[in-house]
Amino acid sequence: MSTAGEFKRDTTYLDGRITADGRDGWPLEAGRYRLVVARGCPWANRTMIVRRLLGLEDALGMGICGPTHDWRSWQFDLDPGEKDPVLGIHWLREAYEKAVPGYERGVTVPAIVDIPSGKVVTSDFRQITRDMEIEWTSYQRDGAPDLYPDALAAEIEEVSDPIYREVNNGVYRCGFASSQRAYDEAYRALFARLDWLEERLANRRYLVGDTITEADVRLWTTLARFDAVYHGHFKCNRNKLIEMPALWGYARDLFQTPGFGDTIDFVQTKQHYYLVHKNLNPSGIVPDGPDLSGWLTPHHREELGGRPFGDGTPPGPPPEPERVPLSHTAQRHV
Amino acid sequence: MSTAGEFKRDTTYLDGRITADGRDGWPLEAGRYRLVVARGCPWANRTMIVRRLLGLEDALGMGICGPTHDWRSWQFDLDPGEKDPVLGIHWLREAYEKAVPGYERGVTVPAIVDIPSGKVVTSDFRQITRDMEIEWTSYQRDGAPDLYPDALAAEIEEVSDPIYREVNNGVYRCGFASSQRAYDEAYRALFARLDWLEERLANRRYLVGDTITEADVRLWTTLARFDAVYHGHFKCNRNKLIEMPALWGYARDLFQTPGFGDTIDFVQTKQHYYLVHKNLNPSGIVPDGPDLSGWLTPHHREELGGRPFGDGTPPGPPPEPERVPLSHTAQRHV
Repeated sequence: MSTAGEFKRDTTYLDGRITADGRDGWPLEAGRYRLVVARGCPWANRTMIVRRLLGLEDALGMGICGPTHDWRSWQFDLDPGEKDPVLGIHWLREAYEKAVPGYERGVTVPAIVDIPSGKVVTSDFRQITRDMEIEWTSYQRDGAPDLYPDALAAEIEEVSDPIYREVNNGVYRCGFASSQRAYDEAYRALFARLDWLEERLANRRYLVGDTITEADVRLWTTLARFDAVYHGHFKCNRNKLIEMPALWGYARDLFQTPGFGDTIDFVQTKQHYYLVHKNLNPSGIVPDGPDLSGWLTPHHREELGGRPFGDGTPPGPPPEPERVPLSHTAQRHV
Repeated sequence: MSTAGEFKRDTTYLDGRITADGRDGWPLEAGRYRLVVARGCPWANRTMIVRRLLGLEDALGMGICGPTHDWRSWQFDLDPGEKDPVLGIHWLREAYEKAVPGYERGVTVPAIVDIPSGKVVTSDFRQITRDMEIEWTSYQRDGAPDLYPDALAAEIEEVSDPIYREVNNGVYRCGFASSQRAYDEAYRALFARLDWLEERLANRRYLVGDTITEADVRLWTTLARFDAVYHGHFKCNRNKLIEMPALWGYARDLFQTPGFGDTIDFVQTKQHYYLVHKNLNPSGIVPDGPDLSGWLTPHHREELGGRPFGDGTPPGPPPEPERVPLSHTAQRHV
């Protein structure tokens, strides 16, 4: 926290890279690594979506932490015996400590763990999806889209940069501000950027180019949580997402695209925020709303054209063990 | 609180009655009594509206407490010298203690204070509006509506009773529940009743009969606070009021009716809830949303017919000292 009460995210991550040529000491290998996520976390959600879109499920297994964590760590409390069946650990912290003895920084998801050594290779969520796109190519499915085309790389970053500051991290800056002024500023920046996005997306189906790119994945995981969490819990309440027609249509379009909505567990997402942040919600009561049925309504965004997967194809359904229970999805309100 | 974590409102109020015949020791007299309110409080808001509709402003002056209170009392911190200019007190508690030495229960608004003795006569919000309607008749303005017609009395109470339990007090039962189960039950009852109201109000302009009655006043003060406070702060978040077309039209119709919307200070209302309930909002940060401009949009409820004031007329504007600053109204977002 700065003296003005502004939330500052610690962005120092473990930053090993798994590469095709192994130059960083972590050579690409199917079955060797494990992606560790939690359903609630928007940063982890990015990696889940890219893994799905690119069809890396078989090559890179996934361990799912429960929705809550304490000061020590995220934990595998959803698994039988409360241990990840592959890594054999309960606390994700154990893998961080194997990588860095005496590890003292935050234990975050997503993380990729080297299964043989039990060490976290990387917790750098930006690099993780980039490397899935550019290093894991030999394991990508047939028809995997190009989420980061060279020709659009500069525009993707140019668009994503303010979105990160003002939206993805901006909602946290609203919720974790410790002064009214810091909150007010974060709120203004957030909604100014959402207004900008509303305009940008009114006449174009996707953020950059005419296909789904990394820029859409980055924005979308925040939009998916907006009405369920950020609007109330983080006081991002000028309006709900559903009150912004273009953004809401855009968010629904992606929600209904294989690889996006099928990664979302609304129950765990709400539990994560409302149970973990005791300073914001001392009672620990998790709201029953919002009504989620709108996520499944027609969005008519096809009329804007665009080719969701470019020259590629949509992914198939998620592997059985990774499917979200029906009662945790938008279906439950239909 | 019950053992199940359910919020129970203490409904023991000071219950003197000011009557035309003075049978309770408090005879009706212009200028003798002072209505004490706070803008944030929905129960006080009922008395402000009825006073406005009936034109009792001159006969019954009004003191306005600031939006916040501590364990001791509401306080007159908005007035010069932080004292009510007529009662000469800072803490409303002083008037309660004059009435009941050693007073130990809650110090609530609305309250009516006998100016000569400085004693609270009544804090019974239900009886206060009833007595304005049936006892203060000789001071009511020309054209004052009949808010509680004999022929509709039974229906008014029949409709108001579940609305009180499930909506007016129901939002508090959501927000102050101390167990998930108590919250879940209050939430279900609240939205079931709102659905019932949505249906009832789809084809009728007012709750009972075809004119504004006490039943509308009682419901409306909760609706006026719904999106600004209860939706987020009390987790009443299945949907916003603006997502329920009939209720939202009904609420706007009354908002735009003289005597209703002109009593609402959105800033003080949000400050009240978000600053006073430190257990729900430890940071004390007050949300900047929601956008309020919708309150002033056309509601088209005239098409349902109805005669807002029956054989009467609308009240004029509020007395100058009681006007809400523009920046605290829905106008600020237009």
